[in-house]
Amino acid sequence: MASRPLFYAFSFLAFSCLCSCRQLQEMANQFNLESVREFLTREEDSIVFSLIERAKYPSNLPAYDPSYLAGGVFRNYSLLDLFVRETEAVQARAGRYQNPEEIPFFPKILVPPIFVPPYKYPEVLHPAAASVNARNAIWKMYFNQLLPQFTAKGDDGRYALAAAADLVCLQALSRRINYGRFVAEAKFRDAPEDYTRAIRAGDRDALMRLLTSEAQEETVKRRAEKKAKVFGQDVTVNNTGRNESSRPKYKVDPAVVYHLYGDWVIPLTKLVEVEYLLHRLD
Amino acid sequence: MASRPLFYAFSFLAFSCLCSCRQLQEMANQFNLESVREFLTREEDSIVFSLIERAKYPSNLPAYDPSYLAGGVFRNYSLLDLFVRETEAVQARAGRYQNPEEIPFFPKILVPPIFVPPYKYPEVLHPAAASVNARNAIWKMYFNQLLPQFTAKGDDGRYALAAAADLVCLQALSRRINYGRFVAEAKFRDAPEDYTRAIRAGDRDALMRLLTSEAQEETVKRRAEKKAKVFGQDVTVNNTGRNESSRPKYKVDPAVVYHLYGDWVIPLTKLVEVEYLLHRLD
Repeated sequence: MASRPLFYAFSFLAFSCLCSCRQLQEMANQFNLESVREFLTREEDSIVFSLIERAKYPSNLPAYDPSYLAGGVFRNYSLLDLFVRETEAVQARAGRYQNPEEIPFFPKILVPPIFVPPYKYPEVLHPAAASVNARNAIWKMYFNQLLPQFTAKGDDGRYALAAAADLVCLQALSRRINYGRFVAEAKFRDAPEDYTRAIRAGDRDALMRLLTSEAQEETVKRRAEKKAKVFGQDVTVNNTGRNESSRPKYKVDPAVVYHLYGDWVIPLTKLVEVEYLLHRLD
Repeated sequence: MASRPLFYAFSFLAFSCLCSCRQLQEMANQFNLESVREFLTREEDSIVFSLIERAKYPSNLPAYDPSYLAGGVFRNYSLLDLFVRETEAVQARAGRYQNPEEIPFFPKILVPPIFVPPYKYPEVLHPAAASVNARNAIWKMYFNQLLPQFTAKGDDGRYALAAAADLVCLQALSRRINYGRFVAEAKFRDAPEDYTRAIRAGDRDALMRLLTSEAQEETVKRRAEKKAKVFGQDVTVNNTGRNESSRPKYKVDPAVVYHLYGDWVIPLTKLVEVEYLLHRLD
């Protein structure tokens, strides 16, 4: 492999850090319930874009079938499995998982060396709870439940493109759902006494009640559905930016996005929040 | 590196191919001016989504500065350079560049082995002209002209995320611009006599006139600008799907997208078309 010498060159830990302490302090100060809500709202756009981009390709089942790769010499990995592992390894070397917002799907293969200097991200999370995540649930949900709902049956051979699009979907969903740790931290700081009581009692139900707002959740589901309509329409020069046909056609069914949020994104985020809070006073 | 044994396992060429001849024939038959136009229109969405996603992060200049990576031990590569090379290598092993629609930015490091079986894509392009591309011009345009126009000045440390978003932008632009080969092939098949005369005479100006429609180009630019407005607005549950404020705010300035198409995407695509045609009868 001609890139091998380059690859070895990465095996080196560098030391400079350009980020000033003032910037870090500013980023830490900006963390509150308002900034958390802005983050989650912006991530909706990313999730919807990523689904629309994956829907360009049909289901492309060979990408997920280990027998497609010469039946077993790859230890029962599918093209998608290998692709995600290798891509996460590259992104780890570029420092992606130094950022506490980011959680890889295959952390065991992501040992250093990395090729970037350490970067001091603001310390927002409680260290004992920072590693809480829902990556396994997200992985299973995406491939077993979601993917068949928004891709057309078929095979166009663009397996590497489909796998790259899958990874963008997975990373967007993971970023959003595992941001539950930050959501929980912001809520805890906003009402420490209420949360401390429930945490000390180990009362999951009480925690779930404290962090649930059904009205707010319905707004989020409706907004995500609306984004699927707005971003997934066929835009022409002359239409108004709305899909005006009596039977509008969208690149991803808005109902799928509504249920993705209602059945998975919101419940899994809350699960991450509860687990985080249970370790918040460790 | 714990992923090393897995990596070596990829160094193996497998042989099965699941794609049936009938599917290939169907895909080849579907190639015409109409299918080419549909492809280009759909790619506009991908390009606009990718710019909006890159605009989530500020300029993050250290990602592009070779001195950030321990001054020189990486042979003057920046984080972005290394990231693109390594990611393209992974995608090549997954078969991305078997597909004639896809052209890598760093082909020299993309020698086999790959870990997927060969896939027989429909043969649409004239072999002697199939390798025409504008990758170097796209690379320079993106970093020197475009990126500073649609990212805010700043540094949030998310260099790996910014680099991943850059690569998605670059790949979307490359896919669209280098699809000029397919555009030229479709136009050639539609009017072979007109084109043959100009090709035999080596007359670039005549070719450029044949494949230019100013009215159509203006439509494309306006539509791309409109997509930046529709996809880059803040969607709420109650708005109409249009940005109704008197001073609407978009995630990427629609004028930047209009000029990206007018100054770069359309001219570079036409350059690829002309170069392709000049080799069409070789």
